[in-house]
Amino acid sequence: MTIENISQAKVFGGWHKQYTHQSDVLACPMRFAIFLPPNASPSHPVPVVYWLSGLTCTDENFMQKAGAFRVAAELGIAIVAPDTSPRGENVANDEGYDLGQGAGFYLNATQEPWAKHFQMYDYIVSELPKLIEANFPVSELKSISGHSMGGHGALTIGLKNSDCYRSISAFSPISNPIQCPWGQKAFTAYLGSSVEAWKQYDSSELLKRAKSALPILVDQGDADGFLHEQLMPNALQAAADLHGSDLTLRMQAGYDHSYYFISSFIEEHLRFHAKHLFA
Amino acid sequence: MTIENISQAKVFGGWHKQYTHQSDVLACPMRFAIFLPPNASPSHPVPVVYWLSGLTCTDENFMQKAGAFRVAAELGIAIVAPDTSPRGENVANDEGYDLGQGAGFYLNATQEPWAKHFQMYDYIVSELPKLIEANFPVSELKSISGHSMGGHGALTIGLKNSDCYRSISAFSPISNPIQCPWGQKAFTAYLGSSVEAWKQYDSSELLKRAKSALPILVDQGDADGFLHEQLMPNALQAAADLHGSDLTLRMQAGYDHSYYFISSFIEEHLRFHAKHLFA
Repeated sequence: MTIENISQAKVFGGWHKQYTHQSDVLACPMRFAIFLPPNASPSHPVPVVYWLSGLTCTDENFMQKAGAFRVAAELGIAIVAPDTSPRGENVANDEGYDLGQGAGFYLNATQEPWAKHFQMYDYIVSELPKLIEANFPVSELKSISGHSMGGHGALTIGLKNSDCYRSISAFSPISNPIQCPWGQKAFTAYLGSSVEAWKQYDSSELLKRAKSALPILVDQGDADGFLHEQLMPNALQAAADLHGSDLTLRMQAGYDHSYYFISSFIEEHLRFHAKHLFA
Repeated sequence: MTIENISQAKVFGGWHKQYTHQSDVLACPMRFAIFLPPNASPSHPVPVVYWLSGLTCTDENFMQKAGAFRVAAELGIAIVAPDTSPRGENVANDEGYDLGQGAGFYLNATQEPWAKHFQMYDYIVSELPKLIEANFPVSELKSISGHSMGGHGALTIGLKNSDCYRSISAFSPISNPIQCPWGQKAFTAYLGSSVEAWKQYDSSELLKRAKSALPILVDQGDADGFLHEQLMPNALQAAADLHGSDLTLRMQAGYDHSYYFISSFIEEHLRFHAKHLFA
């Protein structure tokens, strides 16, 4: 459980820090970033929002571009941003931006050559929170959020672990991956051809089967070029409606898939999570 | 005066847009970015804050990382971010990150091989505002701000053109370039060996010679690794004290040279400019 600090910068009275560590689950060195609000201390541990980023991203995109720290500092919430996949020369990869390194899809791969390293589900659910809770002044209270592939990750991980998180939110999530090209390509490679295996990592399928125990907030820009072919939030809404799950899906007029969109609404997501973390 | 739109994204109800245009002053194609707040319209032209970035930056660094748009949208202020130098295969360059492309220092070069293209002072003072005012719903009211090399640019341009701007602000400016390695290297290359020529582009020297007609706000992190060797804000303070210029220099404990620092205080800078733009 050794971590190595590689950068730190004061921001809004708190600290943004990056660390590397050897991941047992992913069998490679990994990097993550954490924002600690000014009021975090061993005598005052703070709750954590885990942020899962989208295709091609690292721990840096959200931290640099989302503009989240003003409100997180005010609310007293830590934010942890992991990388989006295992990485390194010894880790399997693909030439596409949507498979392999930078595209872990937050699942546990069962197929070769991916299974050895691509276990992002276990990393996010188990290894990373243990590491964070052992090394930083944070409580065990957690919420989870993400964007695009990371929105898919936040929804599926939150839905499958409703006892571990207080709330789920997502921007522009891949809501029904078994029905879209990004999801079908990744799931075929990582999980094989069994659609039943795929359904374990599809938030619309998970919500169809059971009412969510957690409140969910989703924002989606209606000028997002990926909306109709890849994201399909209507499937998530239909699944939530089946059992009356607590989903708020907001279509935001004129917004696209970028961090300009995320920055416009991240304050509302953090206040949503705070309401449930401090309830 | 033709401009070509190359990107647009809705953000905080306004728009971030990037454009290219052929610059007569710089004799090359240039890119700039503009944020237009939601209330900007031909019947309601808004004032503009010009943001000048630091070494190695483009129009994108501030727009992606500063977190400025929430407050700019609320205040009804446009922000224009130009590139930091002329660029292109036909434009002179240097292997150093602190000379040539990405390092224009907001001056008019007089020496070869720089003089043909490196006329950033005239571009920022004259050509760019004319282009902006001809193409967007903005008024002629302007303030100017910047970071590091761009803080030097904002201070020198504002001090030399106090009839064009309402207020000046800077983060971590190169405050006394004739006395620091970055400034001495760039000024020797662009302006030759005459220290009298250098003093025309040194904000501490300009303030020494005359009281500033404009209010100035400067924030400087005291954990900034460039503070003592390159930035030297004490020289600016001493010059302001000579004639009672309206300079507020704030040393911010624990902050470094990064955009995490800028994002923490950009709201106060925008409210400072708004007070003078809407006075």
